[in-house]
Amino acid sequence: MESKSLRFLFSFVAIAFLLLLTWTHLLHAPPPDLTTLIDCATNSHWCTSKNRFQSKQEQPTVTKEPGASTFDRVRRRRHESAVPRHPLDPLTVQEFNKVRSILSSHALFKSSNNYASHSVVLEEPDKDLVRQWEKGQPLFPRIASVVARANGVSHVLSVNLETDEVNVLNTVPPTGYPTMTIEDMTSSIWAPLSNAKFNRTIMDRGVNLDDLACLPISLGWFGKKEENRRLIKVQCYSMKDTVNFYMRPIEGLTVLLDMDTKEVVEISDTGRAIPIPKAANTDYRFSEQKKLQQELNLLNPISIEQPKGPSFVIEDEHLVKWANWEFHLKPDPRAGVVISRAKVRDLDGEVMRDVMYKGFTSELFVPYMDPTDAWYFKTYMDAGEYGFGLQAMPLDPLNDCPRNAYYMDGVFAAGDGVPYVRSNMICVFESYAGDIGWRHAESPITGMEIKEVRPKVTLVVRMAASVANYDYIVDWEFQTDGLIRVKVGLSGILMVKGSEYDNMNQVEENLFGTLLSENVIGVIHDHFITFYLDMDIDGSDNSFVQLNIKRQDTSPGESPRKSYLKVVRNVAKTEKDAQIQLKLYEPSEFHVINPTKKTRVGNPVGYKVVPAGTAASLLDHDDPPQRRGAFTNNQIWVTPYNRSEQWAGGLFVYQSQGDDTLAVWSERDRPIENKDIVVWYTLGFHHIPCQEDFPIMPTVSSSFDLKPVNFFESNPILRTPPNVEKDLPVCRDAASA
Amino acid sequence: MESKSLRFLFSFVAIAFLLLLTWTHLLHAPPPDLTTLIDCATNSHWCTSKNRFQSKQEQPTVTKEPGASTFDRVRRRRHESAVPRHPLDPLTVQEFNKVRSILSSHALFKSSNNYASHSVVLEEPDKDLVRQWEKGQPLFPRIASVVARANGVSHVLSVNLETDEVNVLNTVPPTGYPTMTIEDMTSSIWAPLSNAKFNRTIMDRGVNLDDLACLPISLGWFGKKEENRRLIKVQCYSMKDTVNFYMRPIEGLTVLLDMDTKEVVEISDTGRAIPIPKAANTDYRFSEQKKLQQELNLLNPISIEQPKGPSFVIEDEHLVKWANWEFHLKPDPRAGVVISRAKVRDLDGEVMRDVMYKGFTSELFVPYMDPTDAWYFKTYMDAGEYGFGLQAMPLDPLNDCPRNAYYMDGVFAAGDGVPYVRSNMICVFESYAGDIGWRHAESPITGMEIKEVRPKVTLVVRMAASVANYDYIVDWEFQTDGLIRVKVGLSGILMVKGSEYDNMNQVEENLFGTLLSENVIGVIHDHFITFYLDMDIDGSDNSFVQLNIKRQDTSPGESPRKSYLKVVRNVAKTEKDAQIQLKLYEPSEFHVINPTKKTRVGNPVGYKVVPAGTAASLLDHDDPPQRRGAFTNNQIWVTPYNRSEQWAGGLFVYQSQGDDTLAVWSERDRPIENKDIVVWYTLGFHHIPCQEDFPIMPTVSSSFDLKPVNFFESNPILRTPPNVEKDLPVCRDAASA
Repeated sequence: MESKSLRFLFSFVAIAFLLLLTWTHLLHAPPPDLTTLIDCATNSHWCTSKNRFQSKQEQPTVTKEPGASTFDRVRRRRHESAVPRHPLDPLTVQEFNKVRSILSSHALFKSSNNYASHSVVLEEPDKDLVRQWEKGQPLFPRIASVVARANGVSHVLSVNLETDEVNVLNTVPPTGYPTMTIEDMTSSIWAPLSNAKFNRTIMDRGVNLDDLACLPISLGWFGKKEENRRLIKVQCYSMKDTVNFYMRPIEGLTVLLDMDTKEVVEISDTGRAIPIPKAANTDYRFSEQKKLQQELNLLNPISIEQPKGPSFVIEDEHLVKWANWEFHLKPDPRAGVVISRAKVRDLDGEVMRDVMYKGFTSELFVPYMDPTDAWYFKTYMDAGEYGFGLQAMPLDPLNDCPRNAYYMDGVFAAGDGVPYVRSNMICVFESYAGDIGWRHAESPITGMEIKEVRPKVTLVVRMAASVANYDYIVDWEFQTDGLIRVKVGLSGILMVKGSEYDNMNQVEENLFGTLLSENVIGVIHDHFITFYLDMDIDGSDNSFVQLNIKRQDTSPGESPRKSYLKVVRNVAKTEKDAQIQLKLYEPSEFHVINPTKKTRVGNPVGYKVVPAGTAASLLDHDDPPQRRGAFTNNQIWVTPYNRSEQWAGGLFVYQSQGDDTLAVWSERDRPIENKDIVVWYTLGFHHIPCQEDFPIMPTVSSSFDLKPVNFFESNPILRTPPNVEKDLPVCRDAASA
Repeated sequence: MESKSLRFLFSFVAIAFLLLLTWTHLLHAPPPDLTTLIDCATNSHWCTSKNRFQSKQEQPTVTKEPGASTFDRVRRRRHESAVPRHPLDPLTVQEFNKVRSILSSHALFKSSNNYASHSVVLEEPDKDLVRQWEKGQPLFPRIASVVARANGVSHVLSVNLETDEVNVLNTVPPTGYPTMTIEDMTSSIWAPLSNAKFNRTIMDRGVNLDDLACLPISLGWFGKKEENRRLIKVQCYSMKDTVNFYMRPIEGLTVLLDMDTKEVVEISDTGRAIPIPKAANTDYRFSEQKKLQQELNLLNPISIEQPKGPSFVIEDEHLVKWANWEFHLKPDPRAGVVISRAKVRDLDGEVMRDVMYKGFTSELFVPYMDPTDAWYFKTYMDAGEYGFGLQAMPLDPLNDCPRNAYYMDGVFAAGDGVPYVRSNMICVFESYAGDIGWRHAESPITGMEIKEVRPKVTLVVRMAASVANYDYIVDWEFQTDGLIRVKVGLSGILMVKGSEYDNMNQVEENLFGTLLSENVIGVIHDHFITFYLDMDIDGSDNSFVQLNIKRQDTSPGESPRKSYLKVVRNVAKTEKDAQIQLKLYEPSEFHVINPTKKTRVGNPVGYKVVPAGTAASLLDHDDPPQRRGAFTNNQIWVTPYNRSEQWAGGLFVYQSQGDDTLAVWSERDRPIENKDIVVWYTLGFHHIPCQEDFPIMPTVSSSFDLKPVNFFESNPILRTPPNVEKDLPVCRDAASA
């Protein structure tokens, strides 16, 4: 006990010092020297201004130079000297610093001693302007959109980087708070240590404070108790004998914290009887697995090889050009990846045709299905609460992406407004899985000697966000036939619940999940990922058409058939016509068409949204979490374009009451026919955990497609050549090389 | 006219001669010399005994010899000398010849002058015997299962190849006929030319008889008119100026033919006013595309490379061993690919655990949605009517499968019982698309330096069947995490309808489809592919458990939450409990468990069937096509194992009345709890054609998964190492090599 108390005292002092350091090291620090720019390189600590270190690594840029070797194609640049070249390019290091400098002298902040910058991103120019802009033309005035808090008040600001003008906007939502800063999260997890009761219960449970690992858990909103102050819940784990502390919950212990003051508001301590699950078999790292005497799952090396280099170029750091596609690609602290101005080349000629003005992960909703004290509030909204992009860690070359990948960095602002680099946040690569783009062989019936087959090669844009335990892999996959597949993979580690049980034969109650290992329950939960898809099919004014596939019974004598299926086209006039719940037995196709443009034979040009496997939210619409996550009430929604409506859960999601969601906007039932429209698609997963998910989960994926439908006059990949042996790479085993 | 008449006369004489030759060249021909064994090599004509030619190519076999080069691993063998080594191995050339010899002296056939062998396959030994058999033990007596017709009667026979005994079985179904022979199809398409009225209308429409291409179309069953004789409908196309005759229908002309006598029963000629669509832009061959002046869609070469060779071995020609998997693989004339005895290795140790005793494509159902005279009957059942395996043409190396693929041949019997080789019918390869098996990175929140990512490599077994116009690509994909993905890709050419319209602005009626090009309508249709999945989870006696995911409302005061989801387990007692129609808003998991085996913590071991995107049949259940295709009334069915219930549409599907389908068997409502059970899953597609499908369709895919659920004690791929640069291949561009 003596030694524990001492250790606690030491921890407390250390943490108090850290917090002090943090709070004094904010706005009024001098603008950082560029050489201190943070580089969150592979295997770095987290990337905030408190963890800055010297840039270790410079970033390669790929350009396509015929005949150039892989190494020739890699050029190095410094983020420090980056300049924007496209109206949608993200803020540069210099621009971040300028925003910081402008705001440091602004009335709202200059005397504030608890200023925090929650979001600093480019305020994109008006869509019309961007659509008209062409390479070579001057950029529009660069404006930063800033969300900041000072003296307990949230502000939404527009900072003009040419005029230094700051507009304080009146667009602050009625409820909710901005996305947490990384500093909010990291400081919260240590704050309970300043509470003696907390430390006592930890020690009483036999956990050394040194072994403590805590998580900052957004607490949703459940009524008055959660209003008028920024709150967070902290739950802790033992990391003794494993890095996979997630599997060792200190069950039932929940600390309610004021996120601004770090004051402990309430400690709920209900699970003292529940043992902390053992560390055995929880460490998933290869270094640990190698130490075991069991055989490794070895396969011969396999790789996607492109010795002539990739077929894409990335111009000016952000404009990706590949096959018949081009699009603007940028990292975003909230959305993760933003694809803009996606255009595809028409069948013949050089005309690039608009497909999608902007697409990104707008919000996630992850409700856990356990109504008890330590669990009911776990209803995460990962983009708006934690920052889906902020949590996107550097990708692991060769494993997160294949060897032929190119990597793009993110440059974001930390809580004090200082920019840092999240290196290798996005990868771009060509994929070939051995699949077939199209084929036809004549059969023995006709006996014609025809066999024409084309391989399928795609371009993948990937990021992986680690929102604490869970890892989300988001792929935007472009196909040469004009299809865009948006795929989400779930991996990482379950959020588990400690339990007294070590075998199901002891269990008579509802566990709210699956017993995964002794004393470990994987709690049932859902994942919803809602995508913003501003489709612009050959221009911004489009219509949403539902093609209902309906049974038509034949009249007596009409046909030997009693029934067949026919298509009934319904053009959505207003938003409510386009609130879609998918039904297997009332199927439809969902087209976004340009009503003013037709193909040669008179079909409206369009793209369709093609759902694949998905799941719907079944929670009560009046349940507070579902009110906040009401954007999952339908799988498809269509809204008129409104630049303020980008985040399906609202601009301020943290502790929001659901008064600024897609569901609320759509309820206005605005006209959407032949308008600039935005499609929202929600991908869903029900997850009943199973033992295979312990101690880390094999990836589960689902996807949806955006697919051309009478967009092209005919098959757009007719002119793809087949593979021939003489063009393929010549490879040797590395060991023999 | 003069020259046309002459040409017609010549054609008629030629065809009559061919038919004569065919009919006289059947059973009583001497047993073939082995050197005349047919090899349906790449780009061959169709593979029947009428098209036999000398074996041009010998077949490689892959074995894994450490350090061996790609060429060393290729051994050559002759099908002529193949012997069975596993109880499930398909019949060999010698066995086919023996069957033929035994039957030629059998009373039923020896005096028959119109004998036809419709199916000759191995009659698999009893499941119990096969399950107990181990390598090294003697095989069981080899028995051939034969379906043959003689003197207008269908017979199901069992031919013992050791005792020469022939059993005539009384398992002939009440209605329907056996799968057509290739000879049935090829002879039918020429038969109308013996009818002057037919030739006259062809010529009247301005089509040279030389340019005629006709298709044999199964006519379903719509009542008395289609009973008591084998009938077929023939429709024709003009192949003038294009190989893609499918796009040039001679619309409305349907010839009803007696398939046995080749007598023209009826000619329906309703579409004389409809022009034949033009040939322009219909040829999809690369040789033709190259001639055009437009740019090709060129990408830099990309390839899956494995310079150390594949990680799988195929023992004794049919037993595939890869990573933690092993299974028996064989081609089948009806099912295409049959996977048997799929087993996966347990986490540690060498124990191979049963997963699936047998899996294959049981039936397809493809109803077109046009009730008019020339279309209503198009309700194909491609496996039972045409032979899904018979239509599986040789795969194109480098394009149908990647460069690292191994190919397996099929050996089937032609209509006269003579064996022929369908070379490269199946490919097996390891796939790596750059995807992630599992990953976790610690986020900035915890700041721990962890990033563990494992690449995902899978093993794919593929075939592609060209059922006249359509191409079906069937993949069985095995993952190291125990998952089996079954994927069906649709490509090939649409079945289109001629039309008077060349622009939608002329159209006021229901077209039953989409105007794809001038005078070409892509008719709406569905595709259903029903899989037979004899799951054996750790033994043959299993139960089917539906885990209903249901909303549970909380009691007042119980929780700040109003609702959550809970799982209600329902064990299916009888077949009707397991007739499943999927519902997004009433979701379930579908587990096949072994009720007598539990994991360490007490969960029943199991696999789950995981649907993905699919479609349901919406036709009237009393519509004759839907009665025959009633196996699509549910997406999932479970039946007790019964060796006679393998073909979802019945043993004899052709012209069947739906009295022998899965729906009929299941209606008996037999007990299925803790029994040897078979799961049936139907994958569906609604296809509203679009212009991108003209003149050939980019592949559309869908899939479902069989996924371990508490089958393993924990993540089975924890011990997979990450990729490291030093192991990866060293490749050069071919041009520089």
